[in-house]
Amino acid sequence: MDVTEYEEWLTSLRRELHQRPEPAWREFYTTARIVEELESLGVDDILIGREILADGERSELPEEGELERWFEQARETDADDAILDQLEGGYTGAIATIERGDGPTLALRVDIDGLPRLESESPAHYPAAEGFRSIHEGAMHACGHDAHATIGLGVVRAVLESDFAGTLKVIFQPAEEVIGGAKPIAESGHLDDVDALMALHIGLDHPTGEVVAGVDGFLAVSHIDVAFAGEPAHAGAEPNVGRNANVALATAVQNMYAIPRHKDGETRINAGVIKGGSASNIIAEEASIHGEVRGETTALMEYMKERATEVVEGAAAMHGCDATVEFGAEAPSAESDELLVELVAGLAAESKHVENVLYRDDLGGSEDATYLMQRVQDNGGVASYVGIGTDHPGGHHTATFDVEEESLVIGVDVLANALLELAGENSPLVTAEAGQ
Amino acid sequence: MDVTEYEEWLTSLRRELHQRPEPAWREFYTTARIVEELESLGVDDILIGREILADGERSELPEEGELERWFEQARETDADDAILDQLEGGYTGAIATIERGDGPTLALRVDIDGLPRLESESPAHYPAAEGFRSIHEGAMHACGHDAHATIGLGVVRAVLESDFAGTLKVIFQPAEEVIGGAKPIAESGHLDDVDALMALHIGLDHPTGEVVAGVDGFLAVSHIDVAFAGEPAHAGAEPNVGRNANVALATAVQNMYAIPRHKDGETRINAGVIKGGSASNIIAEEASIHGEVRGETTALMEYMKERATEVVEGAAAMHGCDATVEFGAEAPSAESDELLVELVAGLAAESKHVENVLYRDDLGGSEDATYLMQRVQDNGGVASYVGIGTDHPGGHHTATFDVEEESLVIGVDVLANALLELAGENSPLVTAEAGQ
Amino acid sequence: MDVTEYEEWLTSLRRELHQRPEPAWREFYTTARIVEELESLGVDDILIGREILADGERSELPEEGELERWFEQARETDADDAILDQLEGGYTGAIATIERGDGPTLALRVDIDGLPRLESESPAHYPAAEGFRSIHEGAMHACGHDAHATIGLGVVRAVLESDFAGTLKVIFQPAEEVIGGAKPIAESGHLDDVDALMALHIGLDHPTGEVVAGVDGFLAVSHIDVAFAGEPAHAGAEPNVGRNANVALATAVQNMYAIPRHKDGETRINAGVIKGGSASNIIAEEASIHGEVRGETTALMEYMKERATEVVEGAAAMHGCDATVEFGAEAPSAESDELLVELVAGLAAESKHVENVLYRDDLGGSEDATYLMQRVQDNGGVASYVGIGTDHPGGHHTATFDVEEESLVIGVDVLANALLELAGENSPLVTAEAGQ
Amino acid sequence: MDVTEYEEWLTSLRRELHQRPEPAWREFYTTARIVEELESLGVDDILIGREILADGERSELPEEGELERWFEQARETDADDAILDQLEGGYTGAIATIERGDGPTLALRVDIDGLPRLESESPAHYPAAEGFRSIHEGAMHACGHDAHATIGLGVVRAVLESDFAGTLKVIFQPAEEVIGGAKPIAESGHLDDVDALMALHIGLDHPTGEVVAGVDGFLAVSHIDVAFAGEPAHAGAEPNVGRNANVALATAVQNMYAIPRHKDGETRINAGVIKGGSASNIIAEEASIHGEVRGETTALMEYMKERATEVVEGAAAMHGCDATVEFGAEAPSAESDELLVELVAGLAAESKHVENVLYRDDLGGSEDATYLMQRVQDNGGVASYVGIGTDHPGGHHTATFDVEEESLVIGVDVLANALLELAGENSPLVTAEAGQ
Repeated sequence: MDVTEYEEWLTSLRRELHQRPEPAWREFYTTARIVEELESLGVDDILIGREILADGERSELPEEGELERWFEQARETDADDAILDQLEGGYTGAIATIERGDGPTLALRVDIDGLPRLESESPAHYPAAEGFRSIHEGAMHACGHDAHATIGLGVVRAVLESDFAGTLKVIFQPAEEVIGGAKPIAESGHLDDVDALMALHIGLDHPTGEVVAGVDGFLAVSHIDVAFAGEPAHAGAEPNVGRNANVALATAVQNMYAIPRHKDGETRINAGVIKGGSASNIIAEEASIHGEVRGETTALMEYMKERATEVVEGAAAMHGCDATVEFGAEAPSAESDELLVELVAGLAAESKHVENVLYRDDLGGSEDATYLMQRVQDNGGVASYVGIGTDHPGGHHTATFDVEEESLVIGVDVLANALLELAGENSPLVTAEAGQ
Repeated sequence: MDVTEYEEWLTSLRRELHQRPEPAWREFYTTARIVEELESLGVDDILIGREILADGERSELPEEGELERWFEQARETDADDAILDQLEGGYTGAIATIERGDGPTLALRVDIDGLPRLESESPAHYPAAEGFRSIHEGAMHACGHDAHATIGLGVVRAVLESDFAGTLKVIFQPAEEVIGGAKPIAESGHLDDVDALMALHIGLDHPTGEVVAGVDGFLAVSHIDVAFAGEPAHAGAEPNVGRNANVALATAVQNMYAIPRHKDGETRINAGVIKGGSASNIIAEEASIHGEVRGETTALMEYMKERATEVVEGAAAMHGCDATVEFGAEAPSAESDELLVELVAGLAAESKHVENVLYRDDLGGSEDATYLMQRVQDNGGVASYVGIGTDHPGGHHTATFDVEEESLVIGVDVLANALLELAGENSPLVTAEAGQ
Repeated sequence: MDVTEYEEWLTSLRRELHQRPEPAWREFYTTARIVEELESLGVDDILIGREILADGERSELPEEGELERWFEQARETDADDAILDQLEGGYTGAIATIERGDGPTLALRVDIDGLPRLESESPAHYPAAEGFRSIHEGAMHACGHDAHATIGLGVVRAVLESDFAGTLKVIFQPAEEVIGGAKPIAESGHLDDVDALMALHIGLDHPTGEVVAGVDGFLAVSHIDVAFAGEPAHAGAEPNVGRNANVALATAVQNMYAIPRHKDGETRINAGVIKGGSASNIIAEEASIHGEVRGETTALMEYMKERATEVVEGAAAMHGCDATVEFGAEAPSAESDELLVELVAGLAAESKHVENVLYRDDLGGSEDATYLMQRVQDNGGVASYVGIGTDHPGGHHTATFDVEEESLVIGVDVLANALLELAGENSPLVTAEAGQ
Repeated sequence: MDVTEYEEWLTSLRRELHQRPEPAWREFYTTARIVEELESLGVDDILIGREILADGERSELPEEGELERWFEQARETDADDAILDQLEGGYTGAIATIERGDGPTLALRVDIDGLPRLESESPAHYPAAEGFRSIHEGAMHACGHDAHATIGLGVVRAVLESDFAGTLKVIFQPAEEVIGGAKPIAESGHLDDVDALMALHIGLDHPTGEVVAGVDGFLAVSHIDVAFAGEPAHAGAEPNVGRNANVALATAVQNMYAIPRHKDGETRINAGVIKGGSASNIIAEEASIHGEVRGETTALMEYMKERATEVVEGAAAMHGCDATVEFGAEAPSAESDELLVELVAGLAAESKHVENVLYRDDLGGSEDATYLMQRVQDNGGVASYVGIGTDHPGGHHTATFDVEEESLVIGVDVLANALLELAGENSPLVTAEAGQ
């Protein structure tokens, strides 16, 4: 199978999505656009909205008004209203199923959300120069999920055009950036019959033409939300009467980053979003931190949670404030199964598009794909996470992040071939089972 | 002159204004309502909008969208559209002039803006219990400017009903809370012919029935706006690449409050409003502080500005960030003239409404009335600032601040009598001049 | 009486003392030298050691070894061993009493201790240039107590040479810098019969030739001692196991300085001496702060104590450490009595040595002389604190502090004359009593 | 060879050393005692003092007075004065050489210094209960170097009692804890002819009976010394004039620990020893930090150095202070050679004293043995670092650290046998060379 000819189509799709980045749970236009494309490719089994998201399991939802604003914005595009109706309230994402004869049940997971950050306007930034920079000011596909969604569609097309025999579920997952989308999909049960699941990420500091057959080193992650409550006072007339929530926050933020490194491995913490106070002349009554902690293992993540809580409570006490600490959406750690890593490494090495293959490498970050991987592994299947290199000028999550579009073909090529092989006569899945 | 009978009218006016607090430069309804009341009292010389605000001198304006939102909200009331039209864009406030025969030119200044803070819903909070709590959620008359505006109207009525001979200008000043409204009025020149200016404040921890003849101890004040610019990075994958604006801010905030006390007198600093960062998993690229510094003298305020700048720049450098520091609206210090203090002290002592008179007391805070006082004093006039006590359950700027409504009559009584005396036969203004 | 001729003698005495500064409770040589000088002036009633210090009331004593080290050092000088024997263990200071006929009982208090700080070696520093720089490295008369002791001796000589009638007690007080010496002397009862007490300070940013008749504005002060106890750990191998006392201290120090300013007046705080940890590769197990808090009133000092405690406890909790907070030696506030202020102002104005007299000025610092002043005032006497100006190149407590030696004569002149007047025929003490 | 019978002798030696811990460069008694024991074992080639330490290469020396104090203390023991004479000035440590016929040149390195920390007095602490707790208050063998020195002597005895053919150099290295002793020995050239070097550490959280054949994961380390210089001022009278070195330090310490984690691996930082200020009422003029930074690689150590410098300079600037940052003694990273790891693993597995063998494990800390290992490896030899488990109640560097004395025999057994094997007929060194 040669997917080289998809290049123009993939590029065009990717740019369309890039231009309309939608952050977590707001992927209204994105989902609708994906569904339309799936339909035009001939897929007839497409689940969306509440069908794929277990009840009550979504987390990190934005505020009502924010959801509405993005929904209305999607309404104003030419996206299909009937589809949008099913997404209302933040029920975004889709699962496309292709059932073709006997064979294993396979799955591919791609994530589709953008980030709440401004995209560079510099002429040196390719999307800006080429006119497909984000039209949603303050939102940006700064982590390549536009490419992921595009590759997902490319794989669907490639499989449809092949002699694939078996079942393939392609999961277009929302809300990865807030670690919110994988859990409700896992809990929906749609993956419980899957024999092999693959997920992918583009970039990760690997150059175009390089493929990482098995990405590991996922950091377990948890959101942390802190609220400080102090006492307001007139900052000029009687500052001593106040209990300053902003100073409590400042003390906490500094000391959260200073939580000791741990002998057992990597830890992370970030006070990503802070805000506090209401007016320049009022001692701040309220302040909040929205952040995250990570650990190389779940135990290390728990260590960070424990210490962060201690820091926050101490900082509040120092300044006579109250504090609440809540831990939000979490994702566990996970490992790519050797069976899939070997398969991908072998196929990638043979691909004419691939110049270099790394067997395994560490992500060093977190991903809620681990929820899905664990779910499949817990049910007896195998799972892996593939890295598709691409030269990216800016780092992930920065204003100048971008992907080289020839990587799209590489992603489709490597993943489609892996899926075909898994469903083929010499599938390692069969061998593995036989060998047990 | 007995203004006791005004009580019901004053109370009703004050509650009307209390229910619709409008923060700085957004006093659309408030101004319109005041103008209507002035008209119904028979005042025909009323200046509003651009007529009273020197071009380009307004500061601390809210964002465009914010202005519009409040303007539209005022539009939806029964406020006079013709008046509102002149206020559009944040040209709020009014000057009412009464000219009646020969006599000195006097002025009274009252401020009319509310605060951006939530009002208590507790049944123990009188406005909540009595049904005139703010209908603008998140805004509140938490500093008694509703009472100030009401007293201003009461004084107009009392003067109109008296045998006053001379000219009286009552200034309904916007944007005191952001130290933004006095300067453009001073610069407009409307006060340049004033022989005596009085301003007032209710409360200030003095009980109902107590009057402070001359308030002093105004702290000079300046706004400070700080912006930190760092480098974003994925907080899990490569935190080392980021330059964390939130940590720079946290370090700065802590150390701003730690600027050494000064031997020459009182200083203040407040990082009133802070915010930073865009997402929990991105190292914060931008963060900002909106605050203020104060000093017992202008030199002390300058000391705080200098040290705060040093702190901010050091904090930015520590974390590889850039920082800009801007100082916004300022108000100087000022003193109440003895001539007026003695007059008010004498009249207050004789008033049947007043139980106790303090000669002088310190404000211990800041007020942009000092701009107007200085302007008048610079032009050869006299000026003073009078405190009208009122029992207030919560402190100024807190959710449970409230005034005892019988203080309204006291305020009108003391100030109207002082103005009448100043314009009368035995006016100390004449004596003072003669004595020179 | 003309004391101009004392100049050479005073200068020589002062330089001798300057060269051998001894910090609080270590004034062994200093006390012995003063006693010898008193004896050579003919004073026969000299109390030293335990005779003047109430049992158990000394505070802020240095460690045993430190006391011994300074004692041994004094032993090696030519100081009288018999005197030294009585001072052993830190029982320093002396009270010289001159009883001459009928008259009031008067007292003069001078303090005699040095500071634990290095003296400048710069040739621009007069004592260094003239060869009387401290020979005790790390200790320095950086606050002029060498001049105070010298003036005390000068006053004794002047009184002895006059026709003084009455009783004069000159208190050479130890340990002022640690607020430790006044209390045990007050508690000893030696001042309980005193009708008028005067204390003095040289410098205070007043130039040579200027006298402040009554210094006020003493800040109440209290020492604060904080000890943090954490858990040690190998900083490389398992930093997470540690509980870092140094970070707890750092957090506390920053936030102590950030305690809000108070509406009621001046406050101060200083974490003067900090130390913590034992080795570069061990997470610090212990850390300590030795500092002080001050307030314009005792209530303000208490406010600072309360907030500082809160800060320390919060900082310890943040880092899983324990903390103890102890408040040490305290001094109250005090006021100079008008009777004495007027007397000194009058005499100073007439003195040929004095160029300018200030009636009253604020110290803006603390002094444990207030203990003695309060004691006298509580027993029906009057007390005051006189400022003797001197041009000092460096600020008090800095390495280049120095006094102009002609101020010594001025101090003796003003104080001796005041004492003579108080004991004279027209003593205001008598008038005051008669007038009651 | 059976060394079981050495047990009593080893235990007695270890307790003797344990009782007299001497920190870095102060191992006067320790070196003398080792030399005496070597002599009594019959070793005649013993180098000490300047013979083994390259000129000018010692670092982290204590102050002169401190060296003298420890030297005098050693003088007062029954240690041989002739030996002590050669050690004066901190030229501690020894190299014992055994030359016996043809064979390879081998080396064993043991470190001998104690730590500057107080030892537990608890009866639950074995050395306290058994009466061999440190008699040097404030110093302690809290990292097992007493056991290392003892094992070194045990290996010498075992080799002397065997048919060993070849040359063995046993290096009794001083000043490991300050990363100061290995470099001058490496630079002395004594190891340049060594074919195989082994070093060891006891404990490391491995239980008695467990052996780690090859320890890796040494963190590169560098000392950091920071000095802040501010401006002193009287803390009560004019705090604003001061430039507070203690606050600059506090800000720096907090933010040093908050340096971002790095994607490339482990980093560490410790502000181990802090001190600042001179008196409670003086704004601190000087403050200092003595600490360290580490990294999994040299590049990561450099990253920490760079960021720490930035933090310190920013903190100083914030508070108007100057700062100097100096990086002291450093140790690189290193790896144990496979040839030696396999040899030790094999021999340990056969030892009757050993219950469990780990092939490789990470140290997770730093060691200046890496200097010696690199020197040997650079000259074509092989090197390794062996872990000898021991149940230790408290962690390394804590007050209750202790070793199980039966581990001493295990250490001697494993290392002596490895050395004999390396010098034997079937030496892997020969095979390795032959195989080249």
